[in-house]
Amino acid sequence: MSDDMAMEEAVVAANDRFYRAFESLDIKEMEEVWSTDGSVQCIHPGWGLLSGWADVRNSWVRIFNNTSSMSFVPHVLHVSVEGPVAWVVCVEDIDSRHGDTEHNSQVLATNVFKRVDDRWLLVHHHTSPIFRATESEGNE
Amino acid sequence: MSDDMAMEEAVVAANDRFYRAFESLDIKEMEEVWSTDGSVQCIHPGWGLLSGWADVRNSWVRIFNNTSSMSFVPHVLHVSVEGPVAWVVCVEDIDSRHGDTEHNSQVLATNVFKRVDDRWLLVHHHTSPIFRATESEGNE
Repeated sequence: MSDDMAMEEAVVAANDRFYRAFESLDIKEMEEVWSTDGSVQCIHPGWGLLSGWADVRNSWVRIFNNTSSMSFVPHVLHVSVEGPVAWVVCVEDIDSRHGDTEHNSQVLATNVFKRVDDRWLLVHHHTSPIFRATESEGNE
Repeated sequence: MSDDMAMEEAVVAANDRFYRAFESLDIKEMEEVWSTDGSVQCIHPGWGLLSGWADVRNSWVRIFNNTSSMSFVPHVLHVSVEGPVAWVVCVEDIDSRHGDTEHNSQVLATNVFKRVDDRWLLVHHHTSPIFRATESEGNE
């Protein structure tokens, strides 16, 4: 395997760890996969921007407290690695339960990772709901 | 000015050039600010993923053909520069006209740039509509 391929695999593994942490609904697991400093950013689907680990962490606690169960299948569409930075674009296939309500949805995610001491840590998570097919007409 | 500040300013300038190219509704201007190769990615608000310059270019042509005028005020919320990669998170304040219809909207954008020969070129543009305030409860 080439070094580039090994690097991409490490990034995809980090991306997968993020979704396993999400499924765990355990903030301690989530703390393991993020760079937990002031530089991190997070955009949940339809939300505004959250900046810094304190606010990002609070959002996960809130989501976890309102969710009974959640499962993710991340379909990786693109991986880029450039020096100490990597980003993954994936479609999240999500099944979730909030109280008695089950919910299935698809969300597009850009996850940016930074390499710190040979670990790829999440520094930016941007998600958006998918409303229409790519071939549709539309405007920004 | 420190080197870091100068670098951030160069990235913000590249981000601004992208929005001026968007306002121009001229595909030639857009070609100047993107890395026009197979590695680029683009997610318009509510759309699926577009991969590679050919598809991304087509989407801009389609948007420009359906838009009479457009003006952007990008409010930069965050800039990160890590080696040859930088990303900007901003709120796009958009006024647009399509035929007789005027439209105002706010969109959150992550713009990823790659440094190529001292130019910062756009390689990934991910946008999402804003539905609710950051403090609201919600789920991925």
